[in-house]
Amino acid sequence: MKNTFGQSVALTIFGESHGPAVGAVIDGLPSGIAVDRGFIEAQLGKRRPAGKISTARVEADEFEILSGVFNGKTTGTPLAISIPNKNVKSGDYSDVSRLARPGHADYTAHIRYSGFEDFRGGGHFSGRLTAAVVAAGAIAISALDGCGIKIGTHIKSVHGIFDRDFSELPGDIDKLNSLNFAVLDSEAGERMIAEIEKAASEGDSVGGILETAVVGFPAGVGEPFYDSVESLLSHALFSIPGVKGVEFGEGFGFAKLFGSEANDPIRVEGGKVVFETNRNGGINGGITNGMPIIFRLAVKPTPSIFKTQKTIDYLKLENAELTLRGRHDPAIIHRARVVADSVAALTLMDMLAARFGGDFINKVNGMR
Amino acid sequence: MKNTFGQSVALTIFGESHGPAVGAVIDGLPSGIAVDRGFIEAQLGKRRPAGKISTARVEADEFEILSGVFNGKTTGTPLAISIPNKNVKSGDYSDVSRLARPGHADYTAHIRYSGFEDFRGGGHFSGRLTAAVVAAGAIAISALDGCGIKIGTHIKSVHGIFDRDFSELPGDIDKLNSLNFAVLDSEAGERMIAEIEKAASEGDSVGGILETAVVGFPAGVGEPFYDSVESLLSHALFSIPGVKGVEFGEGFGFAKLFGSEANDPIRVEGGKVVFETNRNGGINGGITNGMPIIFRLAVKPTPSIFKTQKTIDYLKLENAELTLRGRHDPAIIHRARVVADSVAALTLMDMLAARFGGDFINKVNGMR
Amino acid sequence: MKNTFGQSVALTIFGESHGPAVGAVIDGLPSGIAVDRGFIEAQLGKRRPAGKISTARVEADEFEILSGVFNGKTTGTPLAISIPNKNVKSGDYSDVSRLARPGHADYTAHIRYSGFEDFRGGGHFSGRLTAAVVAAGAIAISALDGCGIKIGTHIKSVHGIFDRDFSELPGDIDKLNSLNFAVLDSEAGERMIAEIEKAASEGDSVGGILETAVVGFPAGVGEPFYDSVESLLSHALFSIPGVKGVEFGEGFGFAKLFGSEANDPIRVEGGKVVFETNRNGGINGGITNGMPIIFRLAVKPTPSIFKTQKTIDYLKLENAELTLRGRHDPAIIHRARVVADSVAALTLMDMLAARFGGDFINKVNGMR
Amino acid sequence: MKNTFGQSVALTIFGESHGPAVGAVIDGLPSGIAVDRGFIEAQLGKRRPAGKISTARVEADEFEILSGVFNGKTTGTPLAISIPNKNVKSGDYSDVSRLARPGHADYTAHIRYSGFEDFRGGGHFSGRLTAAVVAAGAIAISALDGCGIKIGTHIKSVHGIFDRDFSELPGDIDKLNSLNFAVLDSEAGERMIAEIEKAASEGDSVGGILETAVVGFPAGVGEPFYDSVESLLSHALFSIPGVKGVEFGEGFGFAKLFGSEANDPIRVEGGKVVFETNRNGGINGGITNGMPIIFRLAVKPTPSIFKTQKTIDYLKLENAELTLRGRHDPAIIHRARVVADSVAALTLMDMLAARFGGDFINKVNGMR
Repeated sequence: MKNTFGQSVALTIFGESHGPAVGAVIDGLPSGIAVDRGFIEAQLGKRRPAGKISTARVEADEFEILSGVFNGKTTGTPLAISIPNKNVKSGDYSDVSRLARPGHADYTAHIRYSGFEDFRGGGHFSGRLTAAVVAAGAIAISALDGCGIKIGTHIKSVHGIFDRDFSELPGDIDKLNSLNFAVLDSEAGERMIAEIEKAASEGDSVGGILETAVVGFPAGVGEPFYDSVESLLSHALFSIPGVKGVEFGEGFGFAKLFGSEANDPIRVEGGKVVFETNRNGGINGGITNGMPIIFRLAVKPTPSIFKTQKTIDYLKLENAELTLRGRHDPAIIHRARVVADSVAALTLMDMLAARFGGDFINKVNGMR
Repeated sequence: MKNTFGQSVALTIFGESHGPAVGAVIDGLPSGIAVDRGFIEAQLGKRRPAGKISTARVEADEFEILSGVFNGKTTGTPLAISIPNKNVKSGDYSDVSRLARPGHADYTAHIRYSGFEDFRGGGHFSGRLTAAVVAAGAIAISALDGCGIKIGTHIKSVHGIFDRDFSELPGDIDKLNSLNFAVLDSEAGERMIAEIEKAASEGDSVGGILETAVVGFPAGVGEPFYDSVESLLSHALFSIPGVKGVEFGEGFGFAKLFGSEANDPIRVEGGKVVFETNRNGGINGGITNGMPIIFRLAVKPTPSIFKTQKTIDYLKLENAELTLRGRHDPAIIHRARVVADSVAALTLMDMLAARFGGDFINKVNGMR
Repeated sequence: MKNTFGQSVALTIFGESHGPAVGAVIDGLPSGIAVDRGFIEAQLGKRRPAGKISTARVEADEFEILSGVFNGKTTGTPLAISIPNKNVKSGDYSDVSRLARPGHADYTAHIRYSGFEDFRGGGHFSGRLTAAVVAAGAIAISALDGCGIKIGTHIKSVHGIFDRDFSELPGDIDKLNSLNFAVLDSEAGERMIAEIEKAASEGDSVGGILETAVVGFPAGVGEPFYDSVESLLSHALFSIPGVKGVEFGEGFGFAKLFGSEANDPIRVEGGKVVFETNRNGGINGGITNGMPIIFRLAVKPTPSIFKTQKTIDYLKLENAELTLRGRHDPAIIHRARVVADSVAALTLMDMLAARFGGDFINKVNGMR
Repeated sequence: MKNTFGQSVALTIFGESHGPAVGAVIDGLPSGIAVDRGFIEAQLGKRRPAGKISTARVEADEFEILSGVFNGKTTGTPLAISIPNKNVKSGDYSDVSRLARPGHADYTAHIRYSGFEDFRGGGHFSGRLTAAVVAAGAIAISALDGCGIKIGTHIKSVHGIFDRDFSELPGDIDKLNSLNFAVLDSEAGERMIAEIEKAASEGDSVGGILETAVVGFPAGVGEPFYDSVESLLSHALFSIPGVKGVEFGEGFGFAKLFGSEANDPIRVEGGKVVFETNRNGGINGGITNGMPIIFRLAVKPTPSIFKTQKTIDYLKLENAELTLRGRHDPAIIHRARVVADSVAALTLMDMLAARFGGDFINKVNGMR
């Protein structure tokens, strides 16, 4: 469904960049999950721009929980969150001329919605919507944490500069979740920031790769075809603005491997089944195998740049040049990282609820 | 849903490798599409193994259309196709010992289905299921063809050997659809085949990358978040066994670009909106922009290899060694290509039906 | 899905009786529908209690549109409406004793949500949620009105007192939509009100039957089995609190008819296909036939009564007596009527969008 | 979805009256349910016409299970059943003249499918499709039986002749399930049969009411709004051809009751919660309360009658008279009864799987 995803636990999102609010409704949550406003705020804080490498639009993200929480815990009925847009400049929008920003959805939205779209700041296509996803994701992360599942994402690369690989799980995850600029190698992080600032100084922007690890997820969850872990996660992850690629385990790296390298040897150790390597990213045949789930996202450079660009006026249907002003993000990847965590948590929670029912937390805890 | 995908036009698949049949039900088809048995057969033929680089199990794929076709045309009610499994060797399956094939779903299926899974030949997880997808996809390809949309996939790479890029669309698509081993550069294709044969001679297997182009697809189809073109296509494409990565346009290549390189300049030419480059793969903000839709799939090496592998007996829960016998595919990428076409056609048809209703063929034709 | 319904146009509802707000998100609306705040207010007014026969809790229903409207028209992206709960008395809810109100969901919710439910005023099960449905429904009614489809509901009976039948369509619909107590025969309406007041004076309540007519709906919409008009409408209509029966056309009256009485004779008149009678309520084989769609809802008596009732304390799990205080509706049927209109409009809009795509308004207008 | 229903366990049906086969795919079944071909045959036998009061078309209903069963038990992957149509007379269907049978879907299907529908014997709209539902339902009934849930339906009335009410549950259910003509009062059954034969002798047909009871279903299943037990059951039940009304508990009878009569008093007895009456049919607020689930279906008279009827030729669009020949059912209610059981079992199984996950059988057994 268009702005709803999930079967047993479904997320619906709404809002526009310059409208009254963005928000989310989560339906199907287990009842009794403690809702920690401080944690939601902290997660929103990770998404919020900060410092030289981010846009000047900084909102406090004061959210309101409209329903679904009682005595500090989820009721199990829909939990609605609204995040008002405060830093909005409205204006006169009855123009007869409008330029499509290349790389953005201005033109496609215009065709899709026959000219009725709220185009201000990208409207419904704005990354602002991910604030609602992050707020909802915080509750999913809490739910997963309640059954021993941890999620963490690092900035694997920015414009060709690479972080080190995951080497200690779940320790790396704990480290990442304490950081605002999520890299495992802080020196690489400094070079990434320098690269972003360099692009900014040239009026340009850069992209990168995010890598996420999920540990503690039980084996045997997922379905062979359309509810495969890869299918459901990729569906949700491609909803993150700017994501243009998703891969699991070795991903595109498989193309260069022999089967004898790609197959993860299986062993019994201490009565438990383990895999000696994890090239399949914790998933075989669409079903989790008990190893960490590993995926990577390609995040394209922020389309908003200050260099003059060739484009069209899509109302007049004629060629034009566009020079953006104001301030924009020269990179979003450091902010997108908490969105990746949130989307993964929501989707994995949904899969657990589908597999084990509404009491999945007790069930998963009982399996350990 | 587990084995059903699509909202306006939904595909349901069923079957196991060694069961009586595999099959598919397509529901929501427009009525009046001519059903060409010869074309379905031809598509199934492209999926069928052939020559030294494929498994010896060759089935005629004699399919039966059980419903949904009347006077040679789709009725609009569910079209069910059954493809009997003929080349099946049954046996005694009450064993007390069973080895998990590394890279396959044997172990995860065992956990998922509590030991009741049909494990013979991978059961429901077998690539055999894609025969049903291809048969159904043939009808989708016919429907899209009826409104000027063409789909073609080439083997972009095999184990590090690369085909040339798409350069002439739709000409390249026509060429690919006439080939059994789908490469644009036949010399590269010969080297790929040699590479596959070399792997086979060593009892090993190789993976690769598929690249698909869709031309003629109208602008303005798709939705900003969960029904984005990327979300829906990736959901369906990750259902193809062995696919571990999906990317659109530059995909993971975006990570190395500046925004000024990544944004496609927009122009009006002859009253039509065109993009000077197509780095976004025909999609902005999840919605088609009228340029060719371009995506790539990472296909892992076939897990069935003849080298001895470390694994477990998952009934006894003890370590073991596995040496497969018989014949298996040293690569599936040349066969997976028609599956990619089929999955894309089914998914894109669903999106057109969602956007324009049951009469989408006339509507799309009227837009040209 | 739990609190979401609709495929092409989906409604999600949230909220609790005594929480911060109730609300709705409509996703998939056509873009460009004029959103008339006055009409939404008027519809909410019809749902709001008034006079002696209703509860004393009267809220102004000041709603806020959080998203999806731009320049006074729908954008086509999710339209979120929030209706704050103003007249809420909070208190101390850490009790160790709690009585289930017979006929309400207190006990079942307690089991379903393991004791975490917001039980205040029925929580999420409150009829208060229907305010969100009515606000959303107002937009659906506007959309249908834009393509010549009209909906009206009358109170067919209250505790054995009957209104006259529909006799002039669409005139009867226009009349009903101008009334607060929706009866075609005002004298019958007076007797109904007297009956309700009599029940109220005895601390009791009464139920009744609603009958809805939809005119102008095109033939050929619906599907043979699970998306039949009856299936989809009944699914949505049974979501209205208190509805315990749904019937189409003659409904349960068919049980006493011969086939020769039940079959509607078909004629061509002035080039158009008409049915001489409408015993099938405008639907054959789950698909509309162009005649008015007619259905009836059984609405049970309001469970909140002032007579002492036998019940249990479901925290202590022991028997108890319950005597409610305060003020409650002795009937809700006169308020439920606008909910029926709203639910029908939302569901029928969804069916049109599924059949004809996002531009269904133009398409339906073009068919006349 | 059009021909698919269910979320955790979904049924997809296909086929036409005179096509090669009708069939069903059930996806999401728990693994390990014993599949008893004899029971499936017995259920199909109850649906099959027999004796003077049924059509002469008697098919053996030799079904084939195409997938999803291994070693006699469900695997948990899709279970496909195909039931070939054997007793089919094909012919020349290129006619230029075609008469709509009043009360049937001939005309509406023609509009819906733009003339491409398979109209032979009602095509996809034929009651023949319910054979597939009954076969699938047999497996659901087995699954529910495995956790102590029993379902039975009796013919509550035929053309004004009434059976006695349920008085002993589950004893009455056992009795009904052993009968071909399912009445609790055999003398009433004889009068019903006489009434049907009388209608038949006059070339006419009759309708009636079915009443279903489900015992042993756990409390706390269902959701407040769109996944309420009433919403989901009615959605599925209205898919049965000829059903025009669905009511729960007192249903339309609530319209004549006071709240003090309608509310079921609650008591604790032996540590268990019971209701002194069951006017709400086992459901409060859309959620089961542990009492028997009771619903009734209005089944209209078979539209195929031998009296001359006024209709149209919908190809020529002109008025005509229709006199059917051959043999048809003067009533279908005695056959529809096993369809009601099947639909209820499938839907309730889906609800249990949604609530408790794939292992619902063990979970429900553990609750007793």
